[in-house]
Amino acid sequence: MNYPDRVDVVEVGLRDGLQIEPEFVPTSVKVRLLNRLIDAGVRHFEATSFVSPRAVPQLRDAADVLQQAGGRPGVTLGALAPNRKGVERALDSKADEVIVFLSATDTHNQKNLNRPVEQSLRDVEEIASLLQGHSIGRKGAIAVAFGCPFEGDVDIGALKAIVAQFARLGFDSVTLGDTTGMATPRLVRKTVDALRTAFPDMPLALHFHNTRGIGLVNVVEGLRAGITTYESSLGGLGGCPYAPGATGNICTEDLVYLLDELGIDTGIALPALLDAARDLQDVMGRTLPGQVMKAGPRLALHDHRGTSVAMG
Amino acid sequence: MNYPDRVDVVEVGLRDGLQIEPEFVPTSVKVRLLNRLIDAGVRHFEATSFVSPRAVPQLRDAADVLQQAGGRPGVTLGALAPNRKGVERALDSKADEVIVFLSATDTHNQKNLNRPVEQSLRDVEEIASLLQGHSIGRKGAIAVAFGCPFEGDVDIGALKAIVAQFARLGFDSVTLGDTTGMATPRLVRKTVDALRTAFPDMPLALHFHNTRGIGLVNVVEGLRAGITTYESSLGGLGGCPYAPGATGNICTEDLVYLLDELGIDTGIALPALLDAARDLQDVMGRTLPGQVMKAGPRLALHDHRGTSVAMG
Repeated sequence: MNYPDRVDVVEVGLRDGLQIEPEFVPTSVKVRLLNRLIDAGVRHFEATSFVSPRAVPQLRDAADVLQQAGGRPGVTLGALAPNRKGVERALDSKADEVIVFLSATDTHNQKNLNRPVEQSLRDVEEIASLLQGHSIGRKGAIAVAFGCPFEGDVDIGALKAIVAQFARLGFDSVTLGDTTGMATPRLVRKTVDALRTAFPDMPLALHFHNTRGIGLVNVVEGLRAGITTYESSLGGLGGCPYAPGATGNICTEDLVYLLDELGIDTGIALPALLDAARDLQDVMGRTLPGQVMKAGPRLALHDHRGTSVAMG
Repeated sequence: MNYPDRVDVVEVGLRDGLQIEPEFVPTSVKVRLLNRLIDAGVRHFEATSFVSPRAVPQLRDAADVLQQAGGRPGVTLGALAPNRKGVERALDSKADEVIVFLSATDTHNQKNLNRPVEQSLRDVEEIASLLQGHSIGRKGAIAVAFGCPFEGDVDIGALKAIVAQFARLGFDSVTLGDTTGMATPRLVRKTVDALRTAFPDMPLALHFHNTRGIGLVNVVEGLRAGITTYESSLGGLGGCPYAPGATGNICTEDLVYLLDELGIDTGIALPALLDAARDLQDVMGRTLPGQVMKAGPRLALHDHRGTSVAMG
């Protein structure tokens, strides 16, 4: 099997996972979770978002989170910024990386950023000039890259135009976001192959949701296509705004379990990660989608004098 | 990509999924679900089990289920039988197929069938002679084939000894059961390759659980290894007796969605399957693990005037 030796797992739970949670999670808890994850070996985070505190009150403590959890050596704390103001706040807060995003389709971009893609592409240019001279990392992110819940299939040409703009403006990497879980293995391969051919020097990351149950299948296809960076959420925290009860981001500890079992190094210690996931589950006060935290790793053996067994 | 053109999906929800449910599902409801699945295009079932009605009261109506749902052309209704008595009842009830099982390890077999593997191998011989002259299908099933919750990793030699016995006694096929979700892609490949090399004429089926979140990843590895029969449970109904809250069987409609998206023919209509899954979810009165029934297929588009969207 032709897998990479090493994969970077980017934890997005405290941003993508938390943002739709109505009950505010105290800053100290967010910082504790970040620190547990760093202790477990996670080195790259989408830690928060500089969106309007009115639009997403859960993330109103973005600057405090970065200030209290930041500064640990070798760790990148990224922050999402939807516009110029967000970028200025990210710079003020000494985020290690700013994530600038737009959608692959006009309808989704209109809903998310209240403007057509064309205008967002111009905004990225303005943001890039704002960032000039700063040592902050620059990541581009494309929402609904594998399908749009309003427009359906996404044209590869639309993705190429966005990646071209990020590349031209000196961004370090681009994340392809499967915002509503519409990616499939064939689509992953087709999209990744096309973008790598067109932009051989631009590192790509994959951000899958498990909304239709095949998030980790898509990861394996990404691995086979040579992608070495994946975004996921502790415990599988998150959801889908279009499908009540559906799952959101793929689950970090299930992803790390899979990568471990494929013999791929992540630098993350699964037992400590599982402890952090259980901590998060306690914080949220409900069962989260992550599976491995319930069952344990495969060789966590059971005492056969215990539970009785179903037949067959 | 090197996938088979066609895959057989065997529905095991009414046996493996239902058996640990404490509340009795009326026979008429079981028959309705079977008929809906047949109407959707499912052609092969593990429909019930002739275990002791005291041990598994949920399946005490095994004979009635077969009698009321049986006889549709082209449909195979299989029944699990743990012993000689179960096989006799399966024959009396005109099951289309009898499934004879044992575990790959002594500890699990002891717990499940109250005897060592060696003795179960002798029992299979006795069962085979009982079946002689009958036109009923014969499937062998090996529990904990990819790992035992008590003994850990399973020796390929132990699997070979069991498959050899089924082959010698004229069984039609053998299912490798991942009873507690310990299969991994590497283990699937290693196990399937070894057994196919040793038994090139014995058709193998794979029965995965999603207990650690990678059930469908294992299916894809099975497809790459050339296996064309997979067992799954409608709605992902089921659980794991060793891990409260953990998931059991992989979910039929999520599996069919994946196979559809890989361009693999199953003969099953996904929309009708989703309707059956929602029916089952209503019957059970709780949310089941299946994802696609919550989110819909990927191109079931949303009206953009509806719900508001999270940022990013």
